Amino acid sequence: MTRAALSEFELIARYLSRPTGGERIDVAVGNGDDCAVLTPTPGHQIAISVDTSVSDVHFPHDAPPAAIGHRALAVALSDLAAMGARARWCCMALTLPAVDEDWVEAFAEGFQTLALRSGCAWIGGDVTRGQLAVSVTVHGELPAGSALKRSGAKPGDVIAVTGYPGRAAAGLERWQQGERDETHPLLAAYLRPEPRLAAGEALRGLAHAAIDISDGLVADLRHLMTASGVAARLEIESLPLATPLRATLETETVRRLALGGGDDYELLLTLNESDLPEAQRRLAALHLPLTAVGRVVEGDGIHGLSPTDLAHDGWDHFPEVAS
Amino acid sequence: MTRAALSEFELIARYLSRPTGGERIDVAVGNGDDCAVLTPTPGHQIAISVDTSVSDVHFPHDAPPAAIGHRALAVALSDLAAMGARARWCCMALTLPAVDEDWVEAFAEGFQTLALRSGCAWIGGDVTRGQLAVSVTVHGELPAGSALKRSGAKPGDVIAVTGYPGRAAAGLERWQQGERDETHPLLAAYLRPEPRLAAGEALRGLAHAAIDISDGLVADLRHLMTASGVAARLEIESLPLATPLRATLETETVRRLALGGGDDYELLLTLNESDLPEAQRRLAALHLPLTAVGRVVEGDGIHGLSPTDLAHDGWDHFPEVAS
Repeated sequence: MTRAALSEFELIARYLSRPTGGERIDVAVGNGDDCAVLTPTPGHQIAISVDTSVSDVHFPHDAPPAAIGHRALAVALSDLAAMGARARWCCMALTLPAVDEDWVEAFAEGFQTLALRSGCAWIGGDVTRGQLAVSVTVHGELPAGSALKRSGAKPGDVIAVTGYPGRAAAGLERWQQGERDETHPLLAAYLRPEPRLAAGEALRGLAHAAIDISDGLVADLRHLMTASGVAARLEIESLPLATPLRATLETETVRRLALGGGDDYELLLTLNESDLPEAQRRLAALHLPLTAVGRVVEGDGIHGLSPTDLAHDGWDHFPEVAS
Repeated sequence: MTRAALSEFELIARYLSRPTGGERIDVAVGNGDDCAVLTPTPGHQIAISVDTSVSDVHFPHDAPPAAIGHRALAVALSDLAAMGARARWCCMALTLPAVDEDWVEAFAEGFQTLALRSGCAWIGGDVTRGQLAVSVTVHGELPAGSALKRSGAKPGDVIAVTGYPGRAAAGLERWQQGERDETHPLLAAYLRPEPRLAAGEALRGLAHAAIDISDGLVADLRHLMTASGVAARLEIESLPLATPLRATLETETVRRLALGGGDDYELLLTLNESDLPEAQRRLAALHLPLTAVGRVVEGDGIHGLSPTDLAHDGWDHFPEVAS
């Protein structure tokens, strides 16, 4: 540390009590009181999710601090996207082993930049001493009754996925192999995932059920199917495979990353086959592909996977960390 | 561990996805989806606060798990009380070094019991692996415009405090000295503080400014005065001193605990002198004393403290932990 150590309160005041991004009439009391006080939009419901990111469990301890800040918020916002909610307010609880002002400054910058870009007012925070971890609570709003639940999938629905899952898992592998160029598209996919907020809102009224892919396409599809009491038939040949992956890896490996790799935070959803073109049109306006990868059927479980594919059901974060 | 180890998801499902305490029409989607979805009360604002409790920073690692669960929620609910908000919804992010089912069961029980008793639906959670820590986000509601802010204190106001601050600090000392009888009133004050939610609601419309005492009466009074741009004149002789403290300690020591001890989560507020009897009447109905301890004056700082008192401005949690 090149600067004098700051007390906890000075740290909070300096970096974690940022303005909420201009005058927001919905924020009656912002940072600096016992609570933030917010004015909700009449006729809307509030969606809330909390996600904790722990050093060397959810991100490498030596990841760039701005990426850690971005990522901690992105994984929480992704839950709002999966619900079809518009991002509104966020709080962050940061646990730090020691006060490193440069680190906190960069971390806060990464968090704040994504918050501003997502329309999410940063309304409160808390700093404590301990193992590096970030716990983020996000709040979104949606017109009453319009939430995209996990439980709405119906037999006959098409199963579709946004973007190209598998890139982030490949990016994490590259990081672990020593790659440090943050502009590398795979590394960027891992370090700075883009929550699909606009896509989630665009899919309201079309998708019957949705989930964000944090654990891997197959693992999260299983959550979706279980919540809906139905089964899935995956069409492996239809999986969208990212160009930077196909350029360097065998198809079989790319497919395994797409099925089992988490951390991309793409959306997985089901909808009427007749609504697929409209959904694709809406997402194309956001420069986001939407690919049909299977079909909802009666029963339970996931069909269409080989035993090899099934072995990659769910991504094991940092398996080298002893549990 | 006497039972088979559970996976993270099994743990969440078994202990941290409790029912929200009966049919709550305001909880449209509870645990188990990407987000909880809530229906706010028309005409109300939402108060939000987040608090992280870290092992051996905010509580002893060997404290009873039910007390850790209670305490983690209580300190967050206390912020709602200080705002005059009614508790509505809470989320908890738990970080655990290892899966110990008995520990999690007792922890969840302590958390859930206080949540139910406070009318606070437990709507979501997250479990991750790491150093023991609990991050709680609480949401309350209050009629629009009625929040008790820190910034409303006016010269001439009486400064008043609920209950008997100092008991929790004495309880922590007892714990550190080896006392383990949880029914001891001082230990109970530390391990299971009671958030003053009903008092906070009762003080709406009377208190000009309020804060909860987490860092100590003097330290939090300083926050209140700074936010309001005024000064305080404390009347040390008027401090309410708890009977179990006076019975065993010298008056000087009790006073120091009352001024500097945190962790009681009493409310500190200012109001018109003419409103003090009505405020005392309302709190007496809750079996809670309200004692005038000073006066708001023009200027800045806190007057009426001796140099010895000032040395105890702010409680140092676990000073033996190296920072």
